[in-house]
Amino acid sequence: MEWENMNYWIAMAGVVAFAVTAVLAVSPNNIDVFGACVMGIITAIGGGTIRDVILDVPVFWAVDLNYIWVAIGASLAAFAANSLFTRKEIFRLMLYLDAIGVALFSIQAANKVWAQNFGRPLAPVIMGIITAIGGGLIRDVLAGRQTLLMTRELYAIPVMIGCTCFAMLLEWLPQYRGVSMFGCGLFIFAMRAAVIRWDLSMPECLTTRPKKTNGQ
Amino acid sequence: MEWENMNYWIAMAGVVAFAVTAVLAVSPNNIDVFGACVMGIITAIGGGTIRDVILDVPVFWAVDLNYIWVAIGASLAAFAANSLFTRKEIFRLMLYLDAIGVALFSIQAANKVWAQNFGRPLAPVIMGIITAIGGGLIRDVLAGRQTLLMTRELYAIPVMIGCTCFAMLLEWLPQYRGVSMFGCGLFIFAMRAAVIRWDLSMPECLTTRPKKTNGQ
Amino acid sequence: MEWENMNYWIAMAGVVAFAVTAVLAVSPNNIDVFGACVMGIITAIGGGTIRDVILDVPVFWAVDLNYIWVAIGASLAAFAANSLFTRKEIFRLMLYLDAIGVALFSIQAANKVWAQNFGRPLAPVIMGIITAIGGGLIRDVLAGRQTLLMTRELYAIPVMIGCTCFAMLLEWLPQYRGVSMFGCGLFIFAMRAAVIRWDLSMPECLTTRPKKTNGQ
Repeated sequence: MEWENMNYWIAMAGVVAFAVTAVLAVSPNNIDVFGACVMGIITAIGGGTIRDVILDVPVFWAVDLNYIWVAIGASLAAFAANSLFTRKEIFRLMLYLDAIGVALFSIQAANKVWAQNFGRPLAPVIMGIITAIGGGLIRDVLAGRQTLLMTRELYAIPVMIGCTCFAMLLEWLPQYRGVSMFGCGLFIFAMRAAVIRWDLSMPECLTTRPKKTNGQ
Repeated sequence: MEWENMNYWIAMAGVVAFAVTAVLAVSPNNIDVFGACVMGIITAIGGGTIRDVILDVPVFWAVDLNYIWVAIGASLAAFAANSLFTRKEIFRLMLYLDAIGVALFSIQAANKVWAQNFGRPLAPVIMGIITAIGGGLIRDVLAGRQTLLMTRELYAIPVMIGCTCFAMLLEWLPQYRGVSMFGCGLFIFAMRAAVIRWDLSMPECLTTRPKKTNGQ
Repeated sequence: MEWENMNYWIAMAGVVAFAVTAVLAVSPNNIDVFGACVMGIITAIGGGTIRDVILDVPVFWAVDLNYIWVAIGASLAAFAANSLFTRKEIFRLMLYLDAIGVALFSIQAANKVWAQNFGRPLAPVIMGIITAIGGGLIRDVLAGRQTLLMTRELYAIPVMIGCTCFAMLLEWLPQYRGVSMFGCGLFIFAMRAAVIRWDLSMPECLTTRPKKTNGQ
């Protein structure tokens, strides 16, 4: 029960971080409070919605509306206190919360999909990635921004590696499920934190146009 | 039965308006007759399709193909008689029909979701908004246009207010469901009509960048 | 069994072509190996996923993971051997494989939807088109490219004509289903091949802006 509870609070912190960073990302545009809320909600719950629709299970936010209430509250706060959240320390904090959210959501999703025996062993990894980045992709498309797939930011790669390891552990060491979840989640968070801390990006040799001149 | 019948005809008028305004919106681009039809159909049925997929009920246009036939017919008409539909009076008429469609579709959607006991009280409001603007969002994304979320047009706000009032009425005065539907629908239409008539937009204080210089 | 087998191999060839052409399409951007794979997978399976979600049946790639494995392999190959695949003969071969894939996927989809008695006779045609072009549309939107709906390329029209003929044959001559599938599939492929071979495009009279000066 306690473990469940902690997961729940971490999930809510992740929702806050997703919504706040979304509002901050679109606010350089001349967006109104409604658009900001929509972007915040979509970023927070979009990925999980795609996952649940493909899995054909009830969407998680209709089962527990707290996800939406928290997303609305966080979006409104980010809209109202924009200058507060763009302050360097707060923004950093949000990035790390976002990293926690990404780690938790993706591993939880992979676990949920695996438990449903859905397209093992590949689908849980794919669904973990979709849950982590789906909402952000929809936000960027609706906002007319470049999606993260077209940049060299290391955002989805840690998720992919973590979920792949998790799937392999579930396959070969199913008895250590709890430890595997914790370890792989921690790995994703650590890798994301390192990316944020040291501003890492994809090595040039793994991109299609490794020229320095027209690098975006 | 008569009430049902009238609703049905209003819905078809809404489909016509959605499809026609969509074709007119994308026709400044060099689009062909096929693309125009696709845009018309998507705008007319896209929002309801997302709603039904999330609700996990059969999509409405597969149950009653008339929605598609009417959308195809209206799109072809708008494509063929482009210069007719861009005439000021006809275009205005289409905007008001669109307002009727938005009012009807969103309240119907909220009612449908509420009746399914799905994520009350928040999900019916969200689904009403999705039904009203989802198709237009997909159209704008596919056409590479700026979505209405990034503008200050008052399009979704009336829907949000109307559906929120409707949800509150259903919660507290469930016996007046018919009257509530009619009243909230009328409210959405009236607010949209006022926006069209007097060219209202979101007050600057509710946008993120209330500067006059770089306002889009 | 043999017929089934051949269909399966053609489908895999189609997946390869979809994934490879997708990676080649986005690689002028500075995309990394992860983004390239995502684009390849989405293009290969996106359309069928939308179809299955709307039909409310289990998504095809979760039932048979080979679709994903092949898409990943083809995407990696296209990423690694970019210069090989952009060679004129190989690229042409990929375009023709893509045409085979489009023909097979759309007719198979129309057949599947028809067999489920879903929204006959219109929905099978629509679902055939969605299956053929849905993945490419998502790819273009995520990559920030102009979608094919906004160009005058004859890509979806052959699919529409072929699926419409197929639906009419299923309606009026249900006993010739196998022959109809083969004939309509061949028709779609032939029309696509002609478009590729002679660089055909939509006649100007069927576009909204038939001016030569600002044609894109």
